[in-house]
Amino acid sequence: MKVLIIGGVAGGASAAARLRRLDEQAEIVVLERSGYVSYANCGLPYYVGGVITDKEALTLQTPESFRRRFRIDVRVGHEATAIHPERKSVTVRSIADGTEYEETYDKLILSPGARAVRPDLPGIDDGRIMTLRTVEDTFRIREYVERCRPRHATVVGGGFIGLEMAENLMEAGVPTTLLQRSAQVLPPLDYDMACQVHSYLRTRGLDLRLNTPIAGYEDAGDCLRVVLKEKPPLKTDLVLLAIGVEPDTKLARDAGLELGRKGSIVVNEYMETSLPDIYAVGDAVQVRHLVSGRPALISLAGPANKQGRIAADRICGREGRYRGSQGSSVIKLFGMTAASTGLNEKSAQAAGIPYEKVVNFSTDHAGYYPGAANLTLKTLFDPESGRILGAQIVGFGGVDKRIDVLAAAVREGLNAADLSELELAYAPPYSSARDPVNVAGFTIENLRSGLVRQFHWDQVDTLCRDGGATLIDVRTPGEFRSGHIPGAVNIPLDDLRERLGELDRDKKIYVNCHSGLRSYLACRILTGSGFACAHLSGGYRFYSYVMSDRRCDEGAAHPCGIPLK
Amino acid sequence: MKVLIIGGVAGGASAAARLRRLDEQAEIVVLERSGYVSYANCGLPYYVGGVITDKEALTLQTPESFRRRFRIDVRVGHEATAIHPERKSVTVRSIADGTEYEETYDKLILSPGARAVRPDLPGIDDGRIMTLRTVEDTFRIREYVERCRPRHATVVGGGFIGLEMAENLMEAGVPTTLLQRSAQVLPPLDYDMACQVHSYLRTRGLDLRLNTPIAGYEDAGDCLRVVLKEKPPLKTDLVLLAIGVEPDTKLARDAGLELGRKGSIVVNEYMETSLPDIYAVGDAVQVRHLVSGRPALISLAGPANKQGRIAADRICGREGRYRGSQGSSVIKLFGMTAASTGLNEKSAQAAGIPYEKVVNFSTDHAGYYPGAANLTLKTLFDPESGRILGAQIVGFGGVDKRIDVLAAAVREGLNAADLSELELAYAPPYSSARDPVNVAGFTIENLRSGLVRQFHWDQVDTLCRDGGATLIDVRTPGEFRSGHIPGAVNIPLDDLRERLGELDRDKKIYVNCHSGLRSYLACRILTGSGFACAHLSGGYRFYSYVMSDRRCDEGAAHPCGIPLK
Repeated sequence: MKVLIIGGVAGGASAAARLRRLDEQAEIVVLERSGYVSYANCGLPYYVGGVITDKEALTLQTPESFRRRFRIDVRVGHEATAIHPERKSVTVRSIADGTEYEETYDKLILSPGARAVRPDLPGIDDGRIMTLRTVEDTFRIREYVERCRPRHATVVGGGFIGLEMAENLMEAGVPTTLLQRSAQVLPPLDYDMACQVHSYLRTRGLDLRLNTPIAGYEDAGDCLRVVLKEKPPLKTDLVLLAIGVEPDTKLARDAGLELGRKGSIVVNEYMETSLPDIYAVGDAVQVRHLVSGRPALISLAGPANKQGRIAADRICGREGRYRGSQGSSVIKLFGMTAASTGLNEKSAQAAGIPYEKVVNFSTDHAGYYPGAANLTLKTLFDPESGRILGAQIVGFGGVDKRIDVLAAAVREGLNAADLSELELAYAPPYSSARDPVNVAGFTIENLRSGLVRQFHWDQVDTLCRDGGATLIDVRTPGEFRSGHIPGAVNIPLDDLRERLGELDRDKKIYVNCHSGLRSYLACRILTGSGFACAHLSGGYRFYSYVMSDRRCDEGAAHPCGIPLK
Repeated sequence: MKVLIIGGVAGGASAAARLRRLDEQAEIVVLERSGYVSYANCGLPYYVGGVITDKEALTLQTPESFRRRFRIDVRVGHEATAIHPERKSVTVRSIADGTEYEETYDKLILSPGARAVRPDLPGIDDGRIMTLRTVEDTFRIREYVERCRPRHATVVGGGFIGLEMAENLMEAGVPTTLLQRSAQVLPPLDYDMACQVHSYLRTRGLDLRLNTPIAGYEDAGDCLRVVLKEKPPLKTDLVLLAIGVEPDTKLARDAGLELGRKGSIVVNEYMETSLPDIYAVGDAVQVRHLVSGRPALISLAGPANKQGRIAADRICGREGRYRGSQGSSVIKLFGMTAASTGLNEKSAQAAGIPYEKVVNFSTDHAGYYPGAANLTLKTLFDPESGRILGAQIVGFGGVDKRIDVLAAAVREGLNAADLSELELAYAPPYSSARDPVNVAGFTIENLRSGLVRQFHWDQVDTLCRDGGATLIDVRTPGEFRSGHIPGAVNIPLDDLRERLGELDRDKKIYVNCHSGLRSYLACRILTGSGFACAHLSGGYRFYSYVMSDRRCDEGAAHPCGIPLK
């Protein structure tokens, strides 16, 4: 059996290695357009920042080591230019000398990946506008930073690569502006969860500009001018384009494979394409979203690796199905961590899936043990069944742990009661006797059983306008003085029972505290005394993140770029 | 409704707070023998070590704050001395003045906890022999350390409290010996997993003595002599007894409640005891082990808190059942972390539950990103179904994360295929594209599907004796030279295909490498070439941990204590 694999990174490399493990006799050929295979693509930004200093660490496997260990014929610098399904062959071009030849296959695996989108804007072809995909791109950017010492860099796009590149350019000593067309970075987060990220990134010195679309680029002699729509232009020395990726599927399209969203390759759960003996894996394929059931494009290394393995298993007659992706992801942002899994509000709405949500603040470990840091956890659930649909976490420690537990919960269809019952490992340096994940379960159960009702930050304005509601803030007077919702009355929780007489029994009471715990206790007291009430999900803290983000974005006079010295 | 709660820590405090949240009108009385309620009992060792410096951090809730916030009548220094189920009342004694009174109840919750076992040994009543249970104990030990500046401390028992106290005594500057009757510390781990802990603790300066039972204690004037069986005595200034706990259930026994193992209180899944209107929660109750289904005693804060909540829910007519405990636990050991969940080999054997096991080494995050550290993961599974029965992890980072994912897997009955499919969040600072948990799933699936066979460290001796086997070590010559299994032949993996001719086809081939990955690849090559073979689970690394632990324990001439200066 001869298996030809197009693309030697992530999915392709996984498929190749698994094939060899399953079949010592198979002939396996890997074609890779770039000069490297099986490289650490998720590590590339950190080489630019000098966090990873060893070039070889990025490229642990070489074509030679692959050949030696796995007897795989790895051809770097070789590009497949056409697939001929009818005669089961591929036209291959050597990039070095342009020569072409035809390579046959019994089975073909496509792992072409996705390429950075380059918008059709004036001046986009300037050499100082770069993208990051390959090891070669990485070396080019790093070399540019070291040789040209840019006075300022501009990252366009606040997704994973954009943010990691912004952090690493700053690590490399380059003042950096991040331009984001929409109102938030990190699309896997909802806007309200991203607000805390925005303010943190600004404290770390990133010049973050939201709602800032680009009109084009102009050569300004010793620098590049980024022309903004309705805003003054920005001078910069280096632009890193990271506005998204698109499946690199011209080859598949030309071969007549069925394509899906954004030109992605349609595959079944065995990673088989629409044509016999042709498989596809990785960022170029359309997957089923595990929670929504909808077709989705999810560019992540974990799924790519698993898909490569499944394609190899299928080719060798073994069981194994790809049930779908849920978009579990995590990103380091300087000292902060943001993570998500499953559906967020945007994706639930787009898929027409009903949901409710809770927002919890917790410390990552026992508050009395040194180093405890807050994390914000937003959990979406099905109002009917309590099933967990997705979660987002922003914080400074223990974020990756909780998102992984929640990723398992989402995948296995756990509901809120299951979450609250999970017996997670506790010692003061690692967690609390009630882990944040348990607390999310409790919170949802309390809502679902009618023990408490909640309202959200985006409903506050309406309440205040109506006048038919009483807002009370049950924090201490000191907390209240340092900032509160306009119109709220301060009645500290411990005084509430004595001061119930001050409240109008004909009005519904809306309660907030700092994080949502005291307001929950207050609601229980109020309910027990016959009042109708609800409490603010996520408390004043969550509300104030959003409000300050809005103020910052509307009011703040952005300097026109970081001045070029 | 009047609810009386005996014991105001963990389970009792949780029940009290939940009761108030559920019923604003209930009369709630908490009796607590010690001077503190709802204190941070898991944090106590860290106060001794000076890691936690703030006394008030240990006792966040005071009787007053509890009363103010929850309207709960908290009586510290009040001990229940008798329960009268027939007239639904309890006799209470004030410890301060010895006066007694009777307190009635509609519902009674027992949360008496467990007390440190004090063995009946000569000299055991010496004032320098202490135990740790309450805040008062903690202050007493800390005060002794600060005032008397002990030249040496001896911790007896290598469970959670013993190890945490040993670490914290050393943090406080006191040279410490830990005496352990059996061959290993940390009973939740199997011996082979504990070996790595032993050697690490010794590198951190702990004088760890295994297989060292104590005969008694003698007053030696300015110090205390610990008399050992068959070994020279040890001089010390302070003994911390931590050989285990036993349910503190005299009250329950006298009241005629049905008792279970070690005098624990038998409860049903609603935390109801054998007598009407009496509930029990926490370390004193017998629970169902979630995996084995057997009665078990599991002293952990997480379960205690959940049980308190469930008792309160039941009293207030709400749903909620305690399905059982699985013993999820984690402990910090200087810079190391050890954790476990579900069954280990010892408990599976005791329960007569068939199991198989795999041992994996992984880095906690991408090896090319700075700071990656190894972790050792042992996973037990049901050979029939592949269901995950338990896991143990020892390492230096990311241990708590993986045990929590595995705890969820054990609880929800996931099998190996489910583990391998989990879509966990990946970025280089946090994990690898294949998380260690996925890798455990892959490893089990490879075994179960017959792709590879394995053998274990304790089978190596027999193989070597038989002579009917060939042992090959597929590491590099350099690795081989630095240590290998006696009798093994070195054939580096990348040379194996060329050197197959050197192998005797009539003998089964036993392969090892460092961690188990290359030996797996070697077995696939050998199998593909018609050899019968198996590889060493956990590799030479795991094997050598056990061997060096044995050598250290048999051969090392222990100094007679740390010399008193």
